[in-house]
Amino acid sequence: MATLCRPAVSVPEHVITMEETLELARSRHPDHPQLPLALRLIENTGVRTRHIVQPIEETLKHPGFAERNKVYEAEAKARVPAVVRRALDDAQVRPTDIDVIIYVSCTGFMMPSMTAWLINEMGFDSDTRQIPMAQLGCAAGGAAINRAHDFCSAYPEANALIVACEFCSLCYQPTDLGVGSLLCNGLFGDGIAAAVVRGRGGEGIRLERNGSYLIPRTEDWIMYDVRATGFHFLLDKRVPATMEPLAPALQELAGQHGWDASDLDFYIIHAGGPRILDDLSKFLQVAPEAFRFSRATLTEYGNIASAVVLDALRRLFDEGGAHEGARGLLAGFGPGITAEMALGRWHRTDDGRQARGHRTHDKETVAR
Amino acid sequence: MATLCRPAVSVPEHVITMEETLELARSRHPDHPQLPLALRLIENTGVRTRHIVQPIEETLKHPGFAERNKVYEAEAKARVPAVVRRALDDAQVRPTDIDVIIYVSCTGFMMPSMTAWLINEMGFDSDTRQIPMAQLGCAAGGAAINRAHDFCSAYPEANALIVACEFCSLCYQPTDLGVGSLLCNGLFGDGIAAAVVRGRGGEGIRLERNGSYLIPRTEDWIMYDVRATGFHFLLDKRVPATMEPLAPALQELAGQHGWDASDLDFYIIHAGGPRILDDLSKFLQVAPEAFRFSRATLTEYGNIASAVVLDALRRLFDEGGAHEGARGLLAGFGPGITAEMALGRWHRTDDGRQARGHRTHDKETVAR
Repeated sequence: MATLCRPAVSVPEHVITMEETLELARSRHPDHPQLPLALRLIENTGVRTRHIVQPIEETLKHPGFAERNKVYEAEAKARVPAVVRRALDDAQVRPTDIDVIIYVSCTGFMMPSMTAWLINEMGFDSDTRQIPMAQLGCAAGGAAINRAHDFCSAYPEANALIVACEFCSLCYQPTDLGVGSLLCNGLFGDGIAAAVVRGRGGEGIRLERNGSYLIPRTEDWIMYDVRATGFHFLLDKRVPATMEPLAPALQELAGQHGWDASDLDFYIIHAGGPRILDDLSKFLQVAPEAFRFSRATLTEYGNIASAVVLDALRRLFDEGGAHEGARGLLAGFGPGITAEMALGRWHRTDDGRQARGHRTHDKETVAR
Repeated sequence: MATLCRPAVSVPEHVITMEETLELARSRHPDHPQLPLALRLIENTGVRTRHIVQPIEETLKHPGFAERNKVYEAEAKARVPAVVRRALDDAQVRPTDIDVIIYVSCTGFMMPSMTAWLINEMGFDSDTRQIPMAQLGCAAGGAAINRAHDFCSAYPEANALIVACEFCSLCYQPTDLGVGSLLCNGLFGDGIAAAVVRGRGGEGIRLERNGSYLIPRTEDWIMYDVRATGFHFLLDKRVPATMEPLAPALQELAGQHGWDASDLDFYIIHAGGPRILDDLSKFLQVAPEAFRFSRATLTEYGNIASAVVLDALRRLFDEGGAHEGARGLLAGFGPGITAEMALGRWHRTDDGRQARGHRTHDKETVAR
């Protein structure tokens, strides 16, 4: 049975606080008619700090799409290998044990994708399958887990490596002045996460069922406008309210499995924003405390897109994990609007790795 | 067992001939020092006609990346549904029978991807899985088939829809003047292909094994340079010679299956260019005639990227298919440099659909 092992997570060394974000918004847009609203929305995110790949002065410049994408490539190549190495170590597998690499990222575009570079640089076999996905946005973390689960269902001896690399700060667009854009400028952060899904063995979430759900006719609620200046993120103001239609999809998937989504032992949820978590708590009738891993990710890192669910899961591992057989739900949300959902049971091994718990990945930055 | 059913294929209504291509190269680059070489390379492709989404006068303009990408989206939305409908009909399945849509395209970028739009517009269920892949280039057709195979291995009752939509003409870059670029301007064409992989039933290739192979350290041989003007295709002159390292990978995969890649009943090969087919014939010691489907695609449509393998397979269907149990190899090649390979046996049903054969998809254009 496919087991999602401990994710390794890294955030960059440049930090921007909520106070700095608010001050930047004030100083850059003093005459913006909706500045007070934007400031209030940013404050409401509860994002205390975010980590970004370049100093803020660099981040605020737009050197062109070509240059931005070159920075993406350079930073990904500099930062991803260390995270992958930790994920492999934590899952107790070697590069040659990996059969497929699922690389998700919506904040830079390379062809060939980073999968080819990783295979060449990190000693993965030449016959490793490559599944790069760039168009699933924040839902891609959940999608990567689900496609890894499917792959291990098809090949029960296989191991899948998932990598989520998001440098949202490289999609900052100084000319986008709508309130939604100003909010996003204060919401998204950068981060890299990697995790192994082991077909046999491993400690973590034993994946039992997965599902996808697209809310009808919401394609334009979260989207990229692709321009000469790169990807312009468009966020509709109806997005924060999407838990109302998505909660029943979570309930239905759980029901198919004979479970009740309101009564599970752990929840790993995409923390798109604070309303997502508040509403899901309300619609699923689950105590807010159940979403503490997601809330902590949002507070400390901001919305790190497809890496959120992996970081939230990392925090559950840091807490010592759940009890053997604990039932849990994992869900990523993103453009479409799409939910990528997974159900599984916590599995502990006897080798004591789990007991070490409380690792301090959250404070760690990648050595360059 | 997963069966790759008859692909539906469509090429746009605007046609450019080899003679017109050569004349354009002469008139636009009269003083290019390597014009004679470029003309010779274009002639050597053997591409007689290509089909493109816009009249050639429009194609030669570059209205900017944003506008290009808008044309991609509009043309994809206008043209893909009819092709998908035919693929579903040919496989005798309804939209609600489809469990996953694998959409591959490297010539435009949308987030959310076309998968979300197709689900909304064509009556697919809201819980249909979405696997959009944009970074596998010409290898993506093979990758889509292989991931569909994997998915049906994980869920034996499932059906997968594959869509390959490539408008290479929208990546024409007038300022790219290297010989490789001039050659590509005469090599690539536009096309859309779709096919269903049925978990149960269906007529076509019963997929038995798949594999991937990355030629070490060739990441920069086929790549996109991502710029404000869009995707700039870079083709290294070493690419045409890649069948020497790839033929052994095909042999090895066949060997793992107890087959001999030199002695199969049919071959569906990515026709990247004429040398690919010539060399593969030589290194696998297979008669050139075995690659007639690929050769015909190249001659009539040019290299239509990820859609090539599906169109080559469509031509085998048009020929009446192979005999029951015939063993075959399917291979897509693309950036990485990656080969996506599949082995399977031809399966006929008794309902006579196959016998109808000789459909005229090759002459068909999509009704707008």
